[in-house]
Amino acid sequence: MPSYTAPVKDMMFLYDKLRDNKNYNELEKYNEVNSDLVKDILEEAAKINQNLILPLAKIGDENPAVLENGVVRTPPGYKEAYQKYIEDGWTSLSCDPKYGGQGMPKTVSAFFDEMLSSASLSFKLYSELSIGAYNCINHHATDEIKNKYLPKMVEGKWSGTMCLTEPVCGTDLGLLKTKAEKQTDGTYKLSGQKIFITSGDQDLTENIIHLVIARATDSPAGTKGISLFLVPKFIVNEDGTIGPRNGVSTGSIESKMGIKGSATCVLNFDDATGYMIGAKDKGLSAMFTMMNLERIVVGIQGLGLSEIAYQNSLAYAKERKQGKTNNTKSTNGADFIIEHADIRKSLLNMKSIIEGERALCFWLSQQTEVSLYHPDEKIKQEASDYVSLMTPVVKSLFTDLGMEITNDAMQIHGGYGYTKDQGIEQLYRDNRITPIYEGTNSVQAADLVFRKLSNKNGNIIARFLDMVKSECESKKGKVETFSKELNHYLDILSKFTGWISDQSKIEKDDVSAAANDYLRTLGYVSIAYSWIKVLEVSFNDYEKNKDFYSDKINTAKFYFEKVLPRAEYHYKSAISGSSNIMKFNFI
Amino acid sequence: MPSYTAPVKDMMFLYDKLRDNKNYNELEKYNEVNSDLVKDILEEAAKINQNLILPLAKIGDENPAVLENGVVRTPPGYKEAYQKYIEDGWTSLSCDPKYGGQGMPKTVSAFFDEMLSSASLSFKLYSELSIGAYNCINHHATDEIKNKYLPKMVEGKWSGTMCLTEPVCGTDLGLLKTKAEKQTDGTYKLSGQKIFITSGDQDLTENIIHLVIARATDSPAGTKGISLFLVPKFIVNEDGTIGPRNGVSTGSIESKMGIKGSATCVLNFDDATGYMIGAKDKGLSAMFTMMNLERIVVGIQGLGLSEIAYQNSLAYAKERKQGKTNNTKSTNGADFIIEHADIRKSLLNMKSIIEGERALCFWLSQQTEVSLYHPDEKIKQEASDYVSLMTPVVKSLFTDLGMEITNDAMQIHGGYGYTKDQGIEQLYRDNRITPIYEGTNSVQAADLVFRKLSNKNGNIIARFLDMVKSECESKKGKVETFSKELNHYLDILSKFTGWISDQSKIEKDDVSAAANDYLRTLGYVSIAYSWIKVLEVSFNDYEKNKDFYSDKINTAKFYFEKVLPRAEYHYKSAISGSSNIMKFNFI
Repeated sequence: MPSYTAPVKDMMFLYDKLRDNKNYNELEKYNEVNSDLVKDILEEAAKINQNLILPLAKIGDENPAVLENGVVRTPPGYKEAYQKYIEDGWTSLSCDPKYGGQGMPKTVSAFFDEMLSSASLSFKLYSELSIGAYNCINHHATDEIKNKYLPKMVEGKWSGTMCLTEPVCGTDLGLLKTKAEKQTDGTYKLSGQKIFITSGDQDLTENIIHLVIARATDSPAGTKGISLFLVPKFIVNEDGTIGPRNGVSTGSIESKMGIKGSATCVLNFDDATGYMIGAKDKGLSAMFTMMNLERIVVGIQGLGLSEIAYQNSLAYAKERKQGKTNNTKSTNGADFIIEHADIRKSLLNMKSIIEGERALCFWLSQQTEVSLYHPDEKIKQEASDYVSLMTPVVKSLFTDLGMEITNDAMQIHGGYGYTKDQGIEQLYRDNRITPIYEGTNSVQAADLVFRKLSNKNGNIIARFLDMVKSECESKKGKVETFSKELNHYLDILSKFTGWISDQSKIEKDDVSAAANDYLRTLGYVSIAYSWIKVLEVSFNDYEKNKDFYSDKINTAKFYFEKVLPRAEYHYKSAISGSSNIMKFNFI
Repeated sequence: MPSYTAPVKDMMFLYDKLRDNKNYNELEKYNEVNSDLVKDILEEAAKINQNLILPLAKIGDENPAVLENGVVRTPPGYKEAYQKYIEDGWTSLSCDPKYGGQGMPKTVSAFFDEMLSSASLSFKLYSELSIGAYNCINHHATDEIKNKYLPKMVEGKWSGTMCLTEPVCGTDLGLLKTKAEKQTDGTYKLSGQKIFITSGDQDLTENIIHLVIARATDSPAGTKGISLFLVPKFIVNEDGTIGPRNGVSTGSIESKMGIKGSATCVLNFDDATGYMIGAKDKGLSAMFTMMNLERIVVGIQGLGLSEIAYQNSLAYAKERKQGKTNNTKSTNGADFIIEHADIRKSLLNMKSIIEGERALCFWLSQQTEVSLYHPDEKIKQEASDYVSLMTPVVKSLFTDLGMEITNDAMQIHGGYGYTKDQGIEQLYRDNRITPIYEGTNSVQAADLVFRKLSNKNGNIIARFLDMVKSECESKKGKVETFSKELNHYLDILSKFTGWISDQSKIEKDDVSAAANDYLRTLGYVSIAYSWIKVLEVSFNDYEKNKDFYSDKINTAKFYFEKVLPRAEYHYKSAISGSSNIMKFNFI
């Protein structure tokens, strides 16, 4: 079984040293959340993840969730762990105190999401969608619904799901067939089939609150006729107690490559009672509140699985001896593989990506808070635009790099990485869903190039590039070596952005074909931008903690020398266009 | 279950149109092997692979090989299929007619290896090592041993294995502990444990001929004291009949990520009778005869799994509808995903890599034959040097790109690629062993940069680059656009080669850290070189078969525009050196 130590030190470094983002510190909401409190929370979080949750990963892989007589049974130990998990209040971490939440900022809950992803993604998924559903209900539902459902969801006694996909529609929700027929009492009866529903059923909570998109019988076809409904597994009585079973049943559960402990369900809705959330026919945009936050969390899943893959690769490299190094001091026998250049390179590749991602994610969490709570509407909007720009980038790049890192971890382990004993290959299998669910990474890339670069608020990407450029130019001293290097890649990204903008008007297929490349280029540059922030602190505070900061500086150096140059390939490959691709006759 | 149609047409194109390699056509040995005969063989091969062997992949994944009371049981149906397989003579395809083989050239057996890898890698492994063992025995053993063992191995009634790895030594064989004690009759008694032994035991053949490396009790430590032994599972009597059980037993079999139908065994040798093959203490070099051929076959495994992944991705993209394209003609509903630019790009990425690899492999098979049978010693040596240069490239690049392609195939299938039903995720899992076994891809890269670029016969890589450059320069007409582009990358490769050569003298760690990048650069250029050969035929014969040749030309165009530029990133990233990597303090 892989070992795991939560990277509390790196998280607290970010929290303590990188939070002085001007706009962020203007938020009054979190004035009382001080460093000591956050440290206490992260240390408790580390304990539960390392001790209680980590073993559930292997247990879930060996004893997948099963459907028995119409009831989903989670793997052994999940029930007990979930009980402890909600008793300790982990579901409520970032929720509104009005409904029993702890009101922690997203910076903290994102750290927790990362730890939980490292420990057991399958277990995490049983509560992750609850938070998504909480956010969606909190944003869009009436007070009556909020008061009725949210306290139990915040407490973790009830869970939530997100029911979008149907057999013929994954990416393309306009095709959906689930119908909702209005009843005289204002409720709806839903009928249809939803597939790939994560935690669609389980034996952990008393009730499950499904958020379902469906078409009202009198609504138009396509995406403009989709509404959002709350459909509980058990009807909730007026007094909040659990009533009769609703018309939702589990048809089957999927047998999957990984995350086997998580139940991925086919749900059948047969005249199930549902309550409309938000405006009629505006269901997709309401669902996207949930989807967007969820997409960032999926990116964090990739980060979490990368972290545990790195930790175990590092430990193995320190204990496995094989071959002699170029400058071996050994007179007989082999050296530890951590002394070999190629293994060191692979480890630094992981580390420089992971720490850069964590810093970028921290900045993104801050911007999310600014977008929600800043008093100045203009700043709020700007932050919201940045979050919306970065959402597809974080979702796709972090999950794709998670595949690279879990794959490299297997390679460092050699044959022992391919066998089941050490649990390394499971990290790859568990992570492999992340580039697929919540919108495949190609869908994210298309979203980025066609909808996120500029919108009704103007040229978002230009503003983002200006911000990065001016921040880089303002940095003086030792960090300048790095910011100059970044400048080179910013130029490439600017040229790439101009090309995307031009081709959008002339040949949209060029843009579609280049979308993944563009996303990666923007992503690599954004991670480099985060490294610049980290570097500035590292140079300034160097004398205070030489070991820690020289580690940061050298890790950043690796990123700039070996990882960032990938951006150039993506640009060069992309701008050759799509005419050959589009005219190709596949036989 | 994935479908599969053997690419006989593309194989016959290579066989018919690209065999006029000057040196190759001087071989008299294969004068009688004409195109019709090869076509008949490939069509029969297609049938057995598509019909009989393909279903064994899923069966093996769902019913892994098991160890019951000390006996390995292969998955259901493997025994019957193996019986038919050897009855039809497939094990003997490339073997010497002297021992009952069909004497087909490697060009043909490589095509067969590809098909078999596509159909079921697990099933393939039960005969693959037999051919490796056959080659090793044929090269190094006495006539007495050859006559006693080879006919049964060629017939497939007996199989072979390759026993190298021990718990503390994978890459680093100098550490091995298995001992061989000489007996008065000239035989040896072997004791020790070997792990990760592919097909170490099975219930398909009457006997298993293990080729084992071990240290004679009076031999020195390290790699200079290793000898090679033939250790049969059952002692073979003087008259060739099966005698008593030898002291070899199966301790356990591995539970793995993939190739679950293949038994990966721990073998315990307890005073097992062994016969020394080749000279004492020269066992490693004898074993490397087998290893080198085997490494090329592992590269072909990656190619075969890529091909089936591509075929199924293409078929799925033609039947799955999702989203509207930029230039959709649909007024309602979605378009087939094959009409989306990013999916087309992903498919062409696969296709351009696969067909380029197949052409490179064909050239390599020819060179292998030249290295073995050409009358001119100089030409023979030159071919042998090219084969030895390309062996690590083909092993590593084809298997790494196999990971990319099987991974992309999952992505094209979306959620259906992650679930078990369609068998797509199995292609990834089965292929994931290929970058690890027969020497990890990093070991291949180190072998390339430290031992293959130049040797006692001179500067091999310079000769190779000159050959490619002069061939490119000799091409006139439409192919020039491509050869000029290749020239740009040849320059990069030359600079990279110069850098490797310089750093080898100054700082070997720079070379170690750059080895994987160098291998990929050489590999991408070599595939482009193969495409040039294909393009020349395609332009010359264009009028004779427009559909086929325009497919080739456009596929090549994709390779040159979108894939080959990767080489530049690898160069740029590598030459930043290793000082930061080597001094890094991993904590």
